[in-house]
Amino acid sequence: MTFPRLAPQRNLDKREIAKFERRFCMYDRNIVQAFETSEYRARLDKVRALMSSAGMDALVVISQANQCYLLGYNSLSGDEPQAALVTLHNDPYFILRKMDANAAVEAGCWLPQDRIIAYPESYVGGEASAWDVIGQFVKDKVGASARLGVEVSGLGVFSYPRLVAALGGEEPIDASDLVGSCRLVKSERELLYMKEAAAIGDRAMLAGIDKVAVGVRHCEVGAAIMSALCAGTESIHGGPPVSPPYIRGGMLAIAPHQFWIDEVFAAGQQYYVGPITGTRHRYVAPLTRTVHLGPVPPRRQNQHEGVLAGHRAALDALRPGATCADVARAFQAAIRPYGLTKDSRLGYSVGLDWTDGPSLGTNNDTEILANMTFLVHLGFYEPGEFYFLSDTVRVTESGAEPLSNVPRILFERPA
Amino acid sequence: MTFPRLAPQRNLDKREIAKFERRFCMYDRNIVQAFETSEYRARLDKVRALMSSAGMDALVVISQANQCYLLGYNSLSGDEPQAALVTLHNDPYFILRKMDANAAVEAGCWLPQDRIIAYPESYVGGEASAWDVIGQFVKDKVGASARLGVEVSGLGVFSYPRLVAALGGEEPIDASDLVGSCRLVKSERELLYMKEAAAIGDRAMLAGIDKVAVGVRHCEVGAAIMSALCAGTESIHGGPPVSPPYIRGGMLAIAPHQFWIDEVFAAGQQYYVGPITGTRHRYVAPLTRTVHLGPVPPRRQNQHEGVLAGHRAALDALRPGATCADVARAFQAAIRPYGLTKDSRLGYSVGLDWTDGPSLGTNNDTEILANMTFLVHLGFYEPGEFYFLSDTVRVTESGAEPLSNVPRILFERPA
Repeated sequence: MTFPRLAPQRNLDKREIAKFERRFCMYDRNIVQAFETSEYRARLDKVRALMSSAGMDALVVISQANQCYLLGYNSLSGDEPQAALVTLHNDPYFILRKMDANAAVEAGCWLPQDRIIAYPESYVGGEASAWDVIGQFVKDKVGASARLGVEVSGLGVFSYPRLVAALGGEEPIDASDLVGSCRLVKSERELLYMKEAAAIGDRAMLAGIDKVAVGVRHCEVGAAIMSALCAGTESIHGGPPVSPPYIRGGMLAIAPHQFWIDEVFAAGQQYYVGPITGTRHRYVAPLTRTVHLGPVPPRRQNQHEGVLAGHRAALDALRPGATCADVARAFQAAIRPYGLTKDSRLGYSVGLDWTDGPSLGTNNDTEILANMTFLVHLGFYEPGEFYFLSDTVRVTESGAEPLSNVPRILFERPA
Repeated sequence: MTFPRLAPQRNLDKREIAKFERRFCMYDRNIVQAFETSEYRARLDKVRALMSSAGMDALVVISQANQCYLLGYNSLSGDEPQAALVTLHNDPYFILRKMDANAAVEAGCWLPQDRIIAYPESYVGGEASAWDVIGQFVKDKVGASARLGVEVSGLGVFSYPRLVAALGGEEPIDASDLVGSCRLVKSERELLYMKEAAAIGDRAMLAGIDKVAVGVRHCEVGAAIMSALCAGTESIHGGPPVSPPYIRGGMLAIAPHQFWIDEVFAAGQQYYVGPITGTRHRYVAPLTRTVHLGPVPPRRQNQHEGVLAGHRAALDALRPGATCADVARAFQAAIRPYGLTKDSRLGYSVGLDWTDGPSLGTNNDTEILANMTFLVHLGFYEPGEFYFLSDTVRVTESGAEPLSNVPRILFERPA
């Protein structure tokens, strides 16, 4: 078998990239925003419409991904309390520890500096809770009678009551899913970043598979993949990877959430590589492929063909008007003739987060819309029979299209 | 300046490694445990002693790091509910989703298969909560009258009341810090894994600094580092990295929790590289160094020397009997003559987690004990004047010793 070569980045129009690669100068500083301020404002307007419908005057945004979505702030400082305050008529506030507040604009936040509020470093690592400060600030800004939404699910058992007490004691409206629901349908520019992430991921996947051989340590394939994910392409800087690759297979490694172990590749065994993803401005586009060392026996070929049939059925079903459950049922029906079953979900919405919305499972009735993006994530974990194929796909009127150009084959390597 | 070469792994005795590299055969399977079962049992006995003192009959362990510490289970499946149940007299139970329960032994868990309890995949991605199942299981095992401890801080605002309801409605004792307090003093074998992680990190640091040059993209230094972290050394497989490196500096990048941006290195600027860490069986040992492109001006040399003085003072103060606050004060006193101040903490306990215990801050009175391990983490984020030096250190009777062999110099690269 000839080792497949990656097609040129046919999903990526170079002029399209160039259009977006210029820099923005704001507030007398040479900072880099991932999106035009107008796009952030449009997102806020969508959020405000939902807030109004739900009877909220203000919303406290806790999720880091939602803060990034609304404010452009792309820095993983969220181990310590930080919150965005969205009101119906004015620009948001962003409250975070001093160390990060000083740098929020440099980290991509489009807000003017006077909307970025720092709390002292003495709140970090000691007994005092910064949720007290954040709650107090919000109460001072919106008034005690404001009807307040809070992303409650982002708070811990201890932090939630402290925040509520600082807000004045009134139980807020739970708005955990409000901003997330606005993130499901992607804009053209979000899709561009996901395609860039996919182009990087494609290179990394082929670099990793190229390295798989009998006797090679799993960690060395990990090294090849991580190196390629970071390095990016000639025209696209690689963003910091969000996860190491999963390299799983052989007789030992059935744990689906373990990356790799101290092991070498063995002849006659099958391994999956991934999910891996390139990263652009926090957007991801994961993919997974499976490799066999030596000639593929018929039962494994059958499994591969069954999953491919399921993959095709799922992508065909992923179109506006269908529900997540419809997609799961179409997949189940397509793999059944091959003697395959899969009782776990077959994927989920993907974008700014690896898992950023509804699951493709028979227990989920979310309606599919155009330009939603899903990770179709087909993992089978029978010992000695591991198989995994996954693709990030974009929903179009005529079904979903994968962002990856890596062939959907069972890769065969010499043994 | 000659580019410094790394000393041979003088912290690592090869016989010491060999002793630990053999495999364990248990339950008729060829599985790999990070520690002897006897070490896990000794840890459980420490936990049980604290449970007894606190009047608990049973403890529900939620933290993934604590599950790894007590059960050996090393897989990042904790996005979905999973819990260990520790009682005073019998082996623990471990309850997790079916996909992961099937593979828990392969993921290093020393428990016999009949103590590993699977809940159905239908609880994942839908409306039903697996905390109901977990709570019900615990109640059935320990009885309604048992005095129960729960790691409450590991639960969300919504999951906590569901778990409590399933447990029978009685408010449990908060045991969030109980297991963590047992993890602070490291065993010889834990220290070995941290030294292995440090040996890998040292290679990665030098590979990264070697790549820094005017015009090089930050992401390429990221690639060199991640590749080396994964690949490990000839004798030590690299574990999956827990984080990309931070590559920060120049005029733009002051955000302390951002990894890197789409930027190239510039002449006359200073950058810090790290914290980065190798990983062994989940143990980490981060380090950070700073690089200057071109001749180092006197004010930056002064800053470097001031931080070095603080580093020495902190390591000297880190000895049994002192408190975290003592160490912070010794550091502050040592940097003051250089005109430096640092208002954030100067590090924290490190081990199975990057941040696994008390902070080295003036607001923390935890007592220092021998064989505790700390990340001494000296970051300065003034725009254009970034400086960062950090080391993972082990507390001995005569002060702390760093695990890294990378010279504590301000690295100078041609510009």
